[in-house]
Amino acid sequence: MAAELSAHDLIAKHRPTLDQALEAIRTRAYWSPHPEHPKAYGENGSLGMAEGKAAFDALLGTRLDLDQPGTDDWVGGETSPYGIELGVTYPHADVDTLLPAMKAGQRAWRDAGAQVRAVVCLEILKRISDRTHEFAHAVMHTSGQAFMMAFQAGGPHAQDRGLEAVAYAYAEQVRTPDEAEWTKPQGKRDPLKLDKRFKAVPRGIALVIGCNTFPTWNGYPGLFASLATGNAVLVKPHPRGVLPLALTVQVAREVLAETGFDPNLVALAAERPGEGIAKTLATRPEIRIIDYTGSTSFGDWLEANARQAQVYTEKAGVNTVLVESTDNYKGMLSNLAFSLSLYSGQMCTTPQNLLIPRDGITTDEGAKSYDEVVTDLARSVGGLLGDDARANALLGAIVNPDVKARLEAAAGLGEVALASREIVNPEFPDAVVRTPVIVKLDGAKPDDEAAYMSECFGPVSFAVAVDSATDGVELLRRTIADKGVMTVGAYTTSDEVAGAVEEVCLDECAQLSLNLTGGVYVNQTAAFSDFHGSGGNPAANAALCDAAFVANRFRMVEIRREV
Amino acid sequence: MAAELSAHDLIAKHRPTLDQALEAIRTRAYWSPHPEHPKAYGENGSLGMAEGKAAFDALLGTRLDLDQPGTDDWVGGETSPYGIELGVTYPHADVDTLLPAMKAGQRAWRDAGAQVRAVVCLEILKRISDRTHEFAHAVMHTSGQAFMMAFQAGGPHAQDRGLEAVAYAYAEQVRTPDEAEWTKPQGKRDPLKLDKRFKAVPRGIALVIGCNTFPTWNGYPGLFASLATGNAVLVKPHPRGVLPLALTVQVAREVLAETGFDPNLVALAAERPGEGIAKTLATRPEIRIIDYTGSTSFGDWLEANARQAQVYTEKAGVNTVLVESTDNYKGMLSNLAFSLSLYSGQMCTTPQNLLIPRDGITTDEGAKSYDEVVTDLARSVGGLLGDDARANALLGAIVNPDVKARLEAAAGLGEVALASREIVNPEFPDAVVRTPVIVKLDGAKPDDEAAYMSECFGPVSFAVAVDSATDGVELLRRTIADKGVMTVGAYTTSDEVAGAVEEVCLDECAQLSLNLTGGVYVNQTAAFSDFHGSGGNPAANAALCDAAFVANRFRMVEIRREV
Repeated sequence: MAAELSAHDLIAKHRPTLDQALEAIRTRAYWSPHPEHPKAYGENGSLGMAEGKAAFDALLGTRLDLDQPGTDDWVGGETSPYGIELGVTYPHADVDTLLPAMKAGQRAWRDAGAQVRAVVCLEILKRISDRTHEFAHAVMHTSGQAFMMAFQAGGPHAQDRGLEAVAYAYAEQVRTPDEAEWTKPQGKRDPLKLDKRFKAVPRGIALVIGCNTFPTWNGYPGLFASLATGNAVLVKPHPRGVLPLALTVQVAREVLAETGFDPNLVALAAERPGEGIAKTLATRPEIRIIDYTGSTSFGDWLEANARQAQVYTEKAGVNTVLVESTDNYKGMLSNLAFSLSLYSGQMCTTPQNLLIPRDGITTDEGAKSYDEVVTDLARSVGGLLGDDARANALLGAIVNPDVKARLEAAAGLGEVALASREIVNPEFPDAVVRTPVIVKLDGAKPDDEAAYMSECFGPVSFAVAVDSATDGVELLRRTIADKGVMTVGAYTTSDEVAGAVEEVCLDECAQLSLNLTGGVYVNQTAAFSDFHGSGGNPAANAALCDAAFVANRFRMVEIRREV
Repeated sequence: MAAELSAHDLIAKHRPTLDQALEAIRTRAYWSPHPEHPKAYGENGSLGMAEGKAAFDALLGTRLDLDQPGTDDWVGGETSPYGIELGVTYPHADVDTLLPAMKAGQRAWRDAGAQVRAVVCLEILKRISDRTHEFAHAVMHTSGQAFMMAFQAGGPHAQDRGLEAVAYAYAEQVRTPDEAEWTKPQGKRDPLKLDKRFKAVPRGIALVIGCNTFPTWNGYPGLFASLATGNAVLVKPHPRGVLPLALTVQVAREVLAETGFDPNLVALAAERPGEGIAKTLATRPEIRIIDYTGSTSFGDWLEANARQAQVYTEKAGVNTVLVESTDNYKGMLSNLAFSLSLYSGQMCTTPQNLLIPRDGITTDEGAKSYDEVVTDLARSVGGLLGDDARANALLGAIVNPDVKARLEAAAGLGEVALASREIVNPEFPDAVVRTPVIVKLDGAKPDDEAAYMSECFGPVSFAVAVDSATDGVELLRRTIADKGVMTVGAYTTSDEVAGAVEEVCLDECAQLSLNLTGGVYVNQTAAFSDFHGSGGNPAANAALCDAAFVANRFRMVEIRREV
């Protein structure tokens, strides 16, 4: 089959971007090829705002036919957290047909080499980027993110994380040369000479198990890391978050076909309600890599049971911020208020526990008691979300009834410093929109510990009174070691306290943000620069993205012969 | 404590070697800083032949006091496969005391950074190298290797593998910069600016579980990979192979102390007979990394049970050589004869199954029937080992009674093409020295399959008659997939057959040596150039050495703050 798109042309088109990405992961300076502003789209082949919306609307109620082998049914049934029925149906696969079909094209994909695989991945990302406006609606109406967040986190930021994975994958594969001449001196005798060839070979089929809240952002690193290292990739989306990943699979299949590769290298595994196909797939012998984002319990199950596969998990943690002192009290409060509010706290990186000395903190506005800090923070959140339009734009919708139930139950866990408020979304009246609750707990009370030492995913934060900064640092250590964290924050003007927090984060392996008071938030990480998770505490066994995330997705096979 | 050896001096001394190692793993051309010839030692501070022997003799019957915390007993009892009692005793550790003590120095070791750790490791290797003659005897009298092999494989080649691991570890750790300035444009507003610092942090304590046959060669990669990435390392040697690793630990502790680090970063866990301490240690929460070489059953147990640790295993495989045709019949026979004989076939890389078409093969000496090939190979082995002095120098001693029992039982598995012969070692009359047995089996007979599809570790090879080259290639595929291999060899003048074998090795992930007829053997790999194992088939879950072997032994922690 003649390829419509030649490797040569794709290399010419994308190699400069790949080189920039390689440089960015080396320097970790700011870089992104994917514009964050919605108005940056609409030219040079990309969909503009109206076109993207129209493209999304045109998908509603349709069958998304991916032309996959082994399609034995059509399944679907996503309801947007904003209330609308998507009505999109997807192919349901007979895995005994689909999995063998996915292996058929692996040899050609493997033999194409690291560079060609990288630029094919970059072409997939480029086409997704061109459809960012369409994907934004798909992410919004599956995750419940507000539009701007769905646009940015589900679009350019997710694409950045995918590209970052491609760059790491490429760098690892080309560390070993394609060939080497090996000549070993033998004194007066002729040297020994061998011709050696090296080839990166894939592990097999990789499984991506998607999540509800960030289908693309959390799905792309594993998808592109596996594909770029020569594996086929089966994408099993969360039943409530299928559309963004189904569109991704569609684009990937299109690009693979146009470049002369087998489109079945990437496929979708949508499921019937309650089918629970992830367990079945995860233990199939063909599945050799699994990327998972979701609950700790299923992540632990995968690690224990999918023994035939390399398993990369991002589970849950109890994210913690120590508030000890600050020289920018207003900045601290507004920064924290934003962190707690963004996407109704439904990020794996949202702070849950705010550790505050019960004797209060020092600030540039004088000493503040524990109660004052909590009250001021509650007021700051209230102010941020006081305007319903702005609140809707920041909070998005509650993603599912479990989160709503947890939010409602949280008020019973302690003294409520800030009550959750119901907000009406005029455009989507069925959306469940809630402001965060802040509950006061006492770090010294065992009953309270049961609450703050468990993950309470959603717009729930605990203002935990601790005996001292030292006590807070020790609680932080215990939290990381026992429960894991995706993020740690700290506010302190004391070098000593900062040093103690740093030591805990280095000892227990947690990513730390210090004294954020401006426009960067503890729950946000930037691809090419920040690591997302550490891979070294119970919250996740891998980080996005480092060499460890890619280096074991392929193996190097050597063929040597005498010269 | 003031360090006797400054980091600055060590960097000046070893950085050029590290740079050469980094270049070697990039080009994979021949390189080694460790001389292979015994006569190369004896000057510039290294022990010469007589000094090394004297140093070894002085160890016999002594207590090797490593000055370890928690030493509650002295254990030992190694008997050389050459018959002598070593009589060396080693510290037995109360692990509840030793493990905490090993953690005490981790912070300073972590904070020293990748370069300092690398040069400290290189200083350890240099001092081991200087004592190569002494180590050679220690390896010889634990593994049963003949002196020259113990010298080379246990000395320079093992040191090369250790250095290779240090180079990979260093390269991975410095891929991320120590710090970055991150400036994100915000249109007309001020850019967002963050100061970011990154630090490689270790996982904790690493456990090296040594093997009997290659204590240093198989032990050094994991030991140095873990140490160079900031971990403490506990070395649990095979009860019959303690001395070479105990000396290694002694040197490491000495260098750590002299460079101002805590010597307890490296410690020995010797055990009482039958104590089975490996299982206890492997599941301790402090143990976060395990490197293991040995039986498949215990390797599988570790992978299943040591869930708190990263587990790197080299288990067992059924190494296979396909003999289809050759343009150098004599060279092929002599090359194979050497491979089967070296260290009495007690290498994890020794070929076990020789797949030969039952209709014979084509050679530069005309067509040869299956029987002729087997007879000629048997004659070649017989010739190679016809002289007892040469046989002793090549075979070494049988390492333990299990191997001897397997060898004796093998003769009952089929028609014996070459019987094993007992050889007397005049210097060590108690040594059990045996030539290899070659047994004819039929690839089409199910009864025979039970024999050739199981690993038979030791000087036992099966000449397996296959229906055709195609049949042989398919059997090769099945062997790799089901049983795993450390090595695959093939002899063929047919591009088609070579291509088919290559495809199988790429598909099933096995390292392939093609048409070796000279002085390189399928069972030997060279550090910095050849991969040992692939990490992609059941014989081993890791390869020596690649980025995947080191990248997950540490994690990167980021500390970011506003500028």
